Amino acid sequence: MLYAVKMHVAIPHDLDPAERDATIAREKAYSQDLQRGGEWRHIWRCAGQYSNISIFDVESNERLHEILWGLPLFAYMTVEVTPLATHPSDIHA
Amino acid sequence: MLYAVKMHVAIPHDLDPAERDATIAREKAYSQDLQRGGEWRHIWRCAGQYSNISIFDVESNERLHEILWGLPLFAYMTVEVTPLATHPSDIHA
Amino acid sequence: MLYAVKMHVAIPHDLDPAERDATIAREKAYSQDLQRGGEWRHIWRCAGQYSNISIFDVESNERLHEILWGLPLFAYMTVEVTPLATHPSDIHA
Amino acid sequence: MLYAVKMHVAIPHDLDPAERDATIAREKAYSQDLQRGGEWRHIWRCAGQYSNISIFDVESNERLHEILWGLPLFAYMTVEVTPLATHPSDIHA
Amino acid sequence: MLYAVKMHVAIPHDLDPAERDATIAREKAYSQDLQRGGEWRHIWRCAGQYSNISIFDVESNERLHEILWGLPLFAYMTVEVTPLATHPSDIHA
Amino acid sequence: MLYAVKMHVAIPHDLDPAERDATIAREKAYSQDLQRGGEWRHIWRCAGQYSNISIFDVESNERLHEILWGLPLFAYMTVEVTPLATHPSDIHA
Amino acid sequence: MLYAVKMHVAIPHDLDPAERDATIAREKAYSQDLQRGGEWRHIWRCAGQYSNISIFDVESNERLHEILWGLPLFAYMTVEVTPLATHPSDIHA
Amino acid sequence: MLYAVKMHVAIPHDLDPAERDATIAREKAYSQDLQRGGEWRHIWRCAGQYSNISIFDVESNERLHEILWGLPLFAYMTVEVTPLATHPSDIHA
Amino acid sequence: MLYAVKMHVAIPHDLDPAERDATIAREKAYSQDLQRGGEWRHIWRCAGQYSNISIFDVESNERLHEILWGLPLFAYMTVEVTPLATHPSDIHA
Amino acid sequence: MLYAVKMHVAIPHDLDPAERDATIAREKAYSQDLQRGGEWRHIWRCAGQYSNISIFDVESNERLHEILWGLPLFAYMTVEVTPLATHPSDIHA
Repeated sequence: MLYAVKMHVAIPHDLDPAERDATIAREKAYSQDLQRGGEWRHIWRCAGQYSNISIFDVESNERLHEILWGLPLFAYMTVEVTPLATHPSDIHA
Repeated sequence: MLYAVKMHVAIPHDLDPAERDATIAREKAYSQDLQRGGEWRHIWRCAGQYSNISIFDVESNERLHEILWGLPLFAYMTVEVTPLATHPSDIHA
Repeated sequence: MLYAVKMHVAIPHDLDPAERDATIAREKAYSQDLQRGGEWRHIWRCAGQYSNISIFDVESNERLHEILWGLPLFAYMTVEVTPLATHPSDIHA
Repeated sequence: MLYAVKMHVAIPHDLDPAERDATIAREKAYSQDLQRGGEWRHIWRCAGQYSNISIFDVESNERLHEILWGLPLFAYMTVEVTPLATHPSDIHA
Repeated sequence: MLYAVKMHVAIPHDLDPAERDATIAREKAYSQDLQRGGEWRHIWRCAGQYSNISIFDVESNERLHEILWGLPLFAYMTVEVTPLATHPSDIHA
Repeated sequence: MLYAVKMHVAIPHDLDPAERDATIAREKAYSQDLQRGGEWRHIWRCAGQYSNISIFDVESNERLHEILWGLPLFAYMTVEVTPLATHPSDIHA
Repeated sequence: MLYAVKMHVAIPHDLDPAERDATIAREKAYSQDLQRGGEWRHIWRCAGQYSNISIFDVESNERLHEILWGLPLFAYMTVEVTPLATHPSDIHA
Repeated sequence: MLYAVKMHVAIPHDLDPAERDATIAREKAYSQDLQRGGEWRHIWRCAGQYSNISIFDVESNERLHEILWGLPLFAYMTVEVTPLATHPSDIHA
Repeated sequence: MLYAVKMHVAIPHDLDPAERDATIAREKAYSQDLQRGGEWRHIWRCAGQYSNISIFDVESNERLHEILWGLPLFAYMTVEVTPLATHPSDIHA
Repeated sequence: MLYAVKMHVAIPHDLDPAERDATIAREKAYSQDLQRGGEWRHIWRCAGQYSNISIFDVESNERLHEILWGLPLFAYMTVEVTPLATHPSDIHA
């Protein structure tokens, strides 16, 4: 089941730089694990923004929430979730 | 070069039903041609909305505009364009 | 799988009254069938609004879209979909 | 009398972690007491958000305010209240 | 139980003038009946707007909805409902 | 001359608790003085919000500003002012 | 007593041109009468908009509403009213 | 003196096609005259939108308004004006 | 050349009170100098807000920016600029 | 390939003044290098705002993102990107 998720990141300016870097590193590892597992299908950077647009392929709303809630940067994110369905014009459908 | 495009469709209620159906049929053919050509990479329906989220892979802003401007339903659409770049966490990058 | 859906209805003022009434009657029958089938779990009127807040329990985003797209009043609605997950404080979870 | 309430939580990043955890624990106990008492009828997590959608069944606006005002996390919440009425399509009405 | 209700009226420009005047006359009578009955406690015109701010004193959300839904101008209104509670600074509380 | 005023309070989380409590106490006394003097005609709590809707009856914009500017919590408030006029349906007008 | 009023005009495209021109002519005469009377102190066109920013000097909210409600173009306007007070930096105060 | 102007065009769906085409043709001629005269310095299409971003170089607000008000498509446009000044980082300043 | 400028002030709560008072005093002197010089034609307080609406009469966008950028409170302000032109109904035009 | 980019800067009030000045100086140098290189074609100050409107001419979304992400003030900016295409009325096209 597919979802489009837009994440915007706003790290507080006074966050300890070491903690900041460690959190970003954990975020990358966390994302790449899920990409390798097939649940995080696409991740694109929005040009000029500290934001990404991602496509998730998970079994349920429950699992989507578990993944997003677990993001190391979650506390600093604004997240927008759009559940997706097959489009009637999709040639792969 | 990738772009995320969100299209929301609002067909006027008093549009002639035959014209409406013909326009929707032309929209489908137009989209499928571009999907087969590789420029319209993904199209998903937003669940519960007369909207889609699409990913385009085109050579320029110019070409993206040409495609979107030519949509048979363009006059009835609200369109939001987000130029995309590679995300540093993308395992395929 | 649960979803909260807010629907706001704006029927055009110049719609033929007979068509208007017939569409509203079909909407009611359509909703009640899905309530009896267990997929449309709750429907509440927002006080003072031509709007409702509903809870759907369906197997997928796909099925949710199919139901909402088929609403007789869909063309006149603004729809907002929120996918739901279990809350850690829920005593029934 | 029913109300839909959407709560969005934004805990300040510099809050003492012990105070943070204690407040969240008190919030959970507070919510579960009201759920057991029947006034807090439903609580769902919005997938991907630090937010919930809840349904309250209380005797008055006064009582609803007393409950929400007393939430241990209230100072960190944005709250949206929608008073509900019976929907004419509700098969249980 | 008190509610603040803001109503904004936008009558379609092409409404038949006779129907327009008759509806406004019925709205006035409807409002004045409820004022005399004590449920519509206050009605003020927002200066420079085709809007009013009103205070209702009714027994339930259900009754509030019944009153607002029955407004002769309801189809042309945008309505905003705020349930009210006693303020701790109110000298009359 | 009447005005509807909506005040939303957001006290900074790091304000000294003693100063916080003293300011709230002064706000209450300030409001009650003006209520007794007849200029602050109504004050209602918005259910579930740290907000109030108030009705002021003052001789001028100047006086309204003087009152609001002097609120002990003014620095922490978002204030929305709506000048009011007599509504043609008001039975007391 | 001063008020800043922003008016934005949106005349329906299908309004009869003769009625349109007559209404605009009446609007001009109406405004100029009030300017000559001293109540409509300033009127400026917002560059590039079918909008104006005006300053009114009237005795009450009641009178302001009477003037704005009587505007020949009122039905086609969006109006925003800001009650004004003396600024402590004003050298003329 | 420079201004950035964003124009969004929404031609009514029921406008007579001949009038529509004639108006668009007049708009083009009008724009090109001003480009040749040096006052309309740049015009770019926003990709995927019936919108443009333009830069005007005119002697006054008055002249800017005269130009925009005279646009053949003005009645169908939403216009946003940003007055510009020299940026301290501009190497041409 | 005229401009309407709306300034909203939000001084950080933790600003040193002496610096705060000194900045406000400098703001007042700065404004009054420009009022005496004729460039800052009007300044009004928005009733109930830490905001003002001002009218500037300056020779260019450049000069307007220089004045606003130099405001002692500029760092704490949200500023909205509307370039003005003569209104065709203005009796003084 | 052209892009319009609007940048709004909000430097935190508690940033160390020396760091603040150094960052602004690096921003200026960074911008001027790109202007000299031809990729940053225009930069204008929005009058009365800590904002600029810029035109970039770069080979791809990827390059645009690299430039903007590298801005010394990026962490303090809100950025809005509009991909541009040739306008059919452009006399230089």
